[in-house]
Amino acid sequence: MAADERQVQEYLELTKKMKSYEEALGVLYWDMRTGAPRKGLNTRSETIGVLSTDLFKLSTSERMGELLDALSAPSAFESLSPMLKRSVTESKKEYDRSKKIPADLYQKYVVLASQAESVWEECKPNNDFATFRPYLEQVVDYQKRFIELWGYEDNKYDTLLDAYEPGMTVRKLDAVFGALREKLVPLVAAVASKPPVDTSFMSRKVPMETQRAFSEFILKEIGYDFAAGRLDPTTHPFATGLNPGDVRVTTRYIEDDFQNSLFSTIHEGGHALYEQNISPDLIGTNLCTGTSMGIHESQSRLWENMIGRSRPFWERYYADFQRMTPELSDVPLDDFYRAVNEVKASLIRTEADELTYNLHIMIRYELEKQLMNDQLQVADLPAAWNAKYKEYLGIEPPNDELGVLQDVHWSGGGFGYFPSYALGNMYAAQMMDAMRKALPSFDALVAAGDFEPIKAWLTDKIYRHGRLLTPSEVIRSVAGAELDPTYLTTYLEAKYSEIYKM
Amino acid sequence: MAADERQVQEYLELTKKMKSYEEALGVLYWDMRTGAPRKGLNTRSETIGVLSTDLFKLSTSERMGELLDALSAPSAFESLSPMLKRSVTESKKEYDRSKKIPADLYQKYVVLASQAESVWEECKPNNDFATFRPYLEQVVDYQKRFIELWGYEDNKYDTLLDAYEPGMTVRKLDAVFGALREKLVPLVAAVASKPPVDTSFMSRKVPMETQRAFSEFILKEIGYDFAAGRLDPTTHPFATGLNPGDVRVTTRYIEDDFQNSLFSTIHEGGHALYEQNISPDLIGTNLCTGTSMGIHESQSRLWENMIGRSRPFWERYYADFQRMTPELSDVPLDDFYRAVNEVKASLIRTEADELTYNLHIMIRYELEKQLMNDQLQVADLPAAWNAKYKEYLGIEPPNDELGVLQDVHWSGGGFGYFPSYALGNMYAAQMMDAMRKALPSFDALVAAGDFEPIKAWLTDKIYRHGRLLTPSEVIRSVAGAELDPTYLTTYLEAKYSEIYKM
Repeated sequence: MAADERQVQEYLELTKKMKSYEEALGVLYWDMRTGAPRKGLNTRSETIGVLSTDLFKLSTSERMGELLDALSAPSAFESLSPMLKRSVTESKKEYDRSKKIPADLYQKYVVLASQAESVWEECKPNNDFATFRPYLEQVVDYQKRFIELWGYEDNKYDTLLDAYEPGMTVRKLDAVFGALREKLVPLVAAVASKPPVDTSFMSRKVPMETQRAFSEFILKEIGYDFAAGRLDPTTHPFATGLNPGDVRVTTRYIEDDFQNSLFSTIHEGGHALYEQNISPDLIGTNLCTGTSMGIHESQSRLWENMIGRSRPFWERYYADFQRMTPELSDVPLDDFYRAVNEVKASLIRTEADELTYNLHIMIRYELEKQLMNDQLQVADLPAAWNAKYKEYLGIEPPNDELGVLQDVHWSGGGFGYFPSYALGNMYAAQMMDAMRKALPSFDALVAAGDFEPIKAWLTDKIYRHGRLLTPSEVIRSVAGAELDPTYLTTYLEAKYSEIYKM
Repeated sequence: MAADERQVQEYLELTKKMKSYEEALGVLYWDMRTGAPRKGLNTRSETIGVLSTDLFKLSTSERMGELLDALSAPSAFESLSPMLKRSVTESKKEYDRSKKIPADLYQKYVVLASQAESVWEECKPNNDFATFRPYLEQVVDYQKRFIELWGYEDNKYDTLLDAYEPGMTVRKLDAVFGALREKLVPLVAAVASKPPVDTSFMSRKVPMETQRAFSEFILKEIGYDFAAGRLDPTTHPFATGLNPGDVRVTTRYIEDDFQNSLFSTIHEGGHALYEQNISPDLIGTNLCTGTSMGIHESQSRLWENMIGRSRPFWERYYADFQRMTPELSDVPLDDFYRAVNEVKASLIRTEADELTYNLHIMIRYELEKQLMNDQLQVADLPAAWNAKYKEYLGIEPPNDELGVLQDVHWSGGGFGYFPSYALGNMYAAQMMDAMRKALPSFDALVAAGDFEPIKAWLTDKIYRHGRLLTPSEVIRSVAGAELDPTYLTTYLEAKYSEIYKM
């Protein structure tokens, strides 16, 4: 029996309405983080609370449940278009996940996570893990209860991973991260034995307006559409896709650290290119978004590191950069190129280079996996953290502020998110390999600033599909194979052997 | 029997929720008018439609009706606090008004008004009243049907006036406008017989950034709190109060018309001072807003014209202005003061000066009144418009673009709104008189840039009360009398006799 057309329409209207609420919330968040006045923030939080609650009610409403039951019944489901099949599958998955958590339990958790985040904010600068510990213990306990309610097949941590990277498992990640670590640890050690590159000129003061002008210039160059977006300053840069016609980039200008805004802008620009180029057919559906955190991160990393930190890119743009940034006019291209690719084992993830970044992620992955499988207690986390840094990066945090307290993620319950960053790097390298085969003149295109064919290829293979394809379908359609970490290691070995003359 | 405490709580929660929706919509509109990317506007309009519809459903819900019935029953009502009494009274009035229009009729009207506005936008530059006419006829017909559904006591137009200025009637307006016109028409004629003031330097090019910097400076000077607001460029300036901690000002920078941004900023700043200084006790209630369009406009006019275009104001700020705006450094204060107060009968309301502005409003008032009372047909509107301009201002529009097609208001159904502008001027003059009595050193305070006592007085008398007082209660509490137009005529006669040496 084919699906009831009225039910299909009602389902589409309901999901469209949910997208409208998401867009409104997106604007409210963007506004809060780009200059909403301080004195209005309390009232604003309440407004966000009201709309979020109403959106949650829509997504878990009885009617939504009935429609999803009807449309996912085998006979009805088979008659749906491919788009509707994916849409219903995703909605059903999220609906079931939400429904498995009792409302009062979830409400208590939301309050706790909010408190824990505030406590973390105070404890971090005071290097005070002891005060934060009971909050983190509770957050971890909630995660474990959620895991039991959601269920899991192989590993408890799988169900958390799946929320950010559908289909990802500990089994898969252990394999790819293992292979990655095997290559990266010696590579980092080899680089460390080489003379350091000169980065002294990277802290020269560059006026914010100069940085802003170059950020705008470079976004236009890589094909970001300002008629479908805007660029604003913020504290913690992000991109937000309200709909494909309104995808906003934010960046941060620091006077004596111009590369912060430069690469943040290209990074967020990569996220934004993805969202701007989702097919208009998907607007108003739950598929009008990136397919996973890992695939999204692959696009920010591809544009930031593999294009934005490449030699052909700076062969094309260094003259423009120097013209607009006279403060750097005496620095030769080669010195600049080496400086933006400096590798240095460091304690802080967000400041890590392209090479060591993956090791920061793997440390967090190992610790999260152990926590969720009762192989590690929160009380033992700082020591375990420091030991892992010693093992993977050869350095040890002198205190918890520079160690286990550095990231906001855990305080807010974001377990399972960290792997996305390293997945993004691996996906990106694998995609780059496929793109170079499809566009043999890739380096020449970058060196000519001709990004149109590159954007067109990425759009055709990845961007336009939004969430119509799963992450696994994306990488198989792009590269003809499942995720494979050797592309990243090959890329990194080649790049850094050349830079560090190994 | 006292009001049921649970019903009171539920009512307050419901109105608070409605305020949250209003705030979200406020941010979405502000964003649309200050730089939301063009390509996202269609989707954005749908998002606004979804939230507006849900807000309307909340405000007209069965539960809201039950609560209002319960709380406005005499025995319950008497037990309510003064704040709750006013809140329930306002809610009940709006609820009844909304409920009297059948939902399908209102839906059709919303579509028509939106169409009519688009048609007007195209017809105006083409000077094409004929194409616009059938749309305007329908809009007027809807207004007349609404009047019948809402009901009226004395004059059909009263019920439209009441939507913007609660308690205002044709009887009252005929009296005050009559008195006003009697004084203004000869005053305008007398000024016209005098030699024109030199305004040649007012079109000197001033860079936008210079204008922006002075706008920001002057907002701070008059006591606008940037921790509870922000200033952004737009096409049609407005101020928007999301909550007292977030009241935003927008302005427009035109290179060869610097006074446009200068006085728009002070005008919107006046609106903003009102909203920023509403008592925090009212946050989250339907009383946390200006009490009427007329009282709101009194504050923009008071700050823009009666302070911002006064001699003491420029005695204090002209040196700052010249320092920041070297393009005007050779212009003597006296010439500048006379130029910003130039009186000239003109065809366009939005460009009119302080003196003739009121006549533009009275023309529209007369025409609206006739239309709603079937004394004028839409087909005859252009001729009636031109005749009134001849009668009141002594000039006649050469075409409809500069005549009847100039304002957006009618296309969107905004009948009854125009009088607010002139009411604002009359209220402002009456308030100024009271303030001068309370603060005898008023001119000296302005000349010293000491606005704190002025803001404090206005806050105490007007701002903090929000909608807790009706417009009539506000003017009576401020001035000890009902609205009286002689304060405005006395003020204008004195000011312009001095400037034009009469």
